[in-house]
Amino acid sequence: MKYLSSLLVAFFIFLQQPSIAQQALQGAPEIKSPELAADGRVTFRVLAPDAKEVKLSGEWLPPDGFAPGSVSMSKGDKGVWSYTTDPLPSELYTYSFVIDGFRTTDPANPFLQRDVATVTNIFIVSGSPGDLYKVNKVPHGTVSKRWYPSPGLGMERRLTVYTPPGYENSKEKYPVLYLLHGAGGDEEAWMTLGRASQILDNLIAQGKTKPMLVVMPNGNVSQEAAPGEESKGFYKPTFMVPKTMDGTYETNFMDIVRFIESNYRVKADKSNRAIAGLSMGGFHSLHISRLNPNSFDYVGLYSAAILPRQQGSDPLPAAYDKIDETLSVQKKNGYKLYWIACGKTDFLYKANQEFRERLDKLGMKFTYRESEGGHTWRNWRVYLSEFTPMLFR
Amino acid sequence: MKYLSSLLVAFFIFLQQPSIAQQALQGAPEIKSPELAADGRVTFRVLAPDAKEVKLSGEWLPPDGFAPGSVSMSKGDKGVWSYTTDPLPSELYTYSFVIDGFRTTDPANPFLQRDVATVTNIFIVSGSPGDLYKVNKVPHGTVSKRWYPSPGLGMERRLTVYTPPGYENSKEKYPVLYLLHGAGGDEEAWMTLGRASQILDNLIAQGKTKPMLVVMPNGNVSQEAAPGEESKGFYKPTFMVPKTMDGTYETNFMDIVRFIESNYRVKADKSNRAIAGLSMGGFHSLHISRLNPNSFDYVGLYSAAILPRQQGSDPLPAAYDKIDETLSVQKKNGYKLYWIACGKTDFLYKANQEFRERLDKLGMKFTYRESEGGHTWRNWRVYLSEFTPMLFR
Repeated sequence: MKYLSSLLVAFFIFLQQPSIAQQALQGAPEIKSPELAADGRVTFRVLAPDAKEVKLSGEWLPPDGFAPGSVSMSKGDKGVWSYTTDPLPSELYTYSFVIDGFRTTDPANPFLQRDVATVTNIFIVSGSPGDLYKVNKVPHGTVSKRWYPSPGLGMERRLTVYTPPGYENSKEKYPVLYLLHGAGGDEEAWMTLGRASQILDNLIAQGKTKPMLVVMPNGNVSQEAAPGEESKGFYKPTFMVPKTMDGTYETNFMDIVRFIESNYRVKADKSNRAIAGLSMGGFHSLHISRLNPNSFDYVGLYSAAILPRQQGSDPLPAAYDKIDETLSVQKKNGYKLYWIACGKTDFLYKANQEFRERLDKLGMKFTYRESEGGHTWRNWRVYLSEFTPMLFR
Repeated sequence: MKYLSSLLVAFFIFLQQPSIAQQALQGAPEIKSPELAADGRVTFRVLAPDAKEVKLSGEWLPPDGFAPGSVSMSKGDKGVWSYTTDPLPSELYTYSFVIDGFRTTDPANPFLQRDVATVTNIFIVSGSPGDLYKVNKVPHGTVSKRWYPSPGLGMERRLTVYTPPGYENSKEKYPVLYLLHGAGGDEEAWMTLGRASQILDNLIAQGKTKPMLVVMPNGNVSQEAAPGEESKGFYKPTFMVPKTMDGTYETNFMDIVRFIESNYRVKADKSNRAIAGLSMGGFHSLHISRLNPNSFDYVGLYSAAILPRQQGSDPLPAAYDKIDETLSVQKKNGYKLYWIACGKTDFLYKANQEFRERLDKLGMKFTYRESEGGHTWRNWRVYLSEFTPMLFR
């Protein structure tokens, strides 16, 4: 700090940071949390001098019924509670604290992710697969939030487009992966929870995945954009959004494909289009590819919801009529990869098993990947990492 | 909910949302917070049955020394604490809760912003200026995060580019505003804290601001990108970053201009370039425009730090040598607008006053805008809203 005026600027603005100012003024200890040791141990710390009980909570700790697992933290010097884990395997982890029953994020860690309406902190333990989810010193693609017109839905809608490193300074045309989120998600989900741009940057740099565009639309047709990004303003996101599984999105999906193909330098044919999604996005991928049976050479169903089931006398929406017929046309037209991935403990395991039997009956070829675990982003990040290297070969 | 399988999907994934699951299982009340009434009253609520004292804290409440102001919330039914404000004037507000001395975000509000390392919740009260900070039903520009090569700094660095609505489907060339953050900020700051894309979308839709690109680079030359977005991984952001005010950024800034002008459809001349910034970004704008005295027709200094002051016998970095001489060249070359804005209670008020006197002595014309308030994003959003309509006329 050589220059007095810089120093003054620093000091005064420093004091304007509420939490920093508070700590500085009260002489409270500086908190480092989480602290990752080289051996994979992670130490969490939180300053809560007046608390009676502080717990660390995460879906990676042994679960407590339906709630994520938790462990008690120990109170130490100056009211700082802490907990150090055993060495953790490489992964992207989420966590929160529970202070006297109140669930909260870690004030020392500004790295957060939103899953539907729940915000948690994140950290990454290095190794495999964690390194794939990190920003590394590799060429980076461009990530754009862009609005497209949907003539079918009669509105402008927001989507996320990943263009691979080099796209802007090339004359080459690229293939496209359409990557769809699950229920409660939106055009942000694959970027934040799924680490899609990091996975693509890293796999492309390793030569494992071909440079491609990844288009991440919003699958909730009643929304223009993610909560907070559309004119409805800030509202609490909900898991179920109207009209997400009634055929409207599927029957208007080609609006997105047409937009991308007339606005980006891409190869606009079946052999250069892939579609994949998780849970509801897998459901959408199944039906969109079947309803446009000569449009996608690559289909990925990650922990997919499969079919709506007729309840009582309500007729199925027309989009879910004639499933076997359309699948048969898709089969006859041919495709390169129909990839189904599911975790052993996924609540959709049985539905996926029945769907595989249905495909077998139709003589429709697919590749099946069964993993450990259930209906989790941990699995979907792995599925994306395994799926993209198989595309456009 | 017509279809059983959809229902099952919904229910099971619903239970995977930790906080929702907890509430659902424990029969806790659904919390709506903040709740905005039409008259501008805002009600905050938080479930904390075991807490002894809960406060609402925000920089818009009467301050408590250097800490933001706070008010006590009242404990009501089922352990829900609440507080309702008087009608608040239109604005974007930040807040947090303090539960038995522990400062935390609002778990019912997933809309957050990070200022250096501090995360707070946000909400917007409608009217003026709040409506300008909202996403409205107007055409939206595209916001891209892109990496550019800096030959001068010898690295790839990340920046944010706003292209105006219609950019992609036009053959027109556009002017460019380079918009710089303050100390502790990065290429995200103007987008999140400054609501730059909303302000531009809205002012362009109202015909008040000409369509232009807004380029928001990272002014910390020791960083490739914002914390968490570069290969250093997740680390706690700090207010002072090395080498931010030593001339390195200023003397390499034209790398960014060259990148933009060779990668975007823009008008590449002085009359179509503006540069502006807040605090340290105002300091950068002052020196970059002076060191490139025939490059920018529009300069905006928002609550700017002005000059580094020599301390002891350390020589000033060469970039800050010959200030009067370079300003005189800038004056002689001519420019259309040199805009200085400062709040009456800004700790940099005196430095700005001295700078205005210095410009007067040099006979260098400027426009001065004095506002209420101090060194705050509230002022910087207003300054951006007032500055952009004057550009490229």
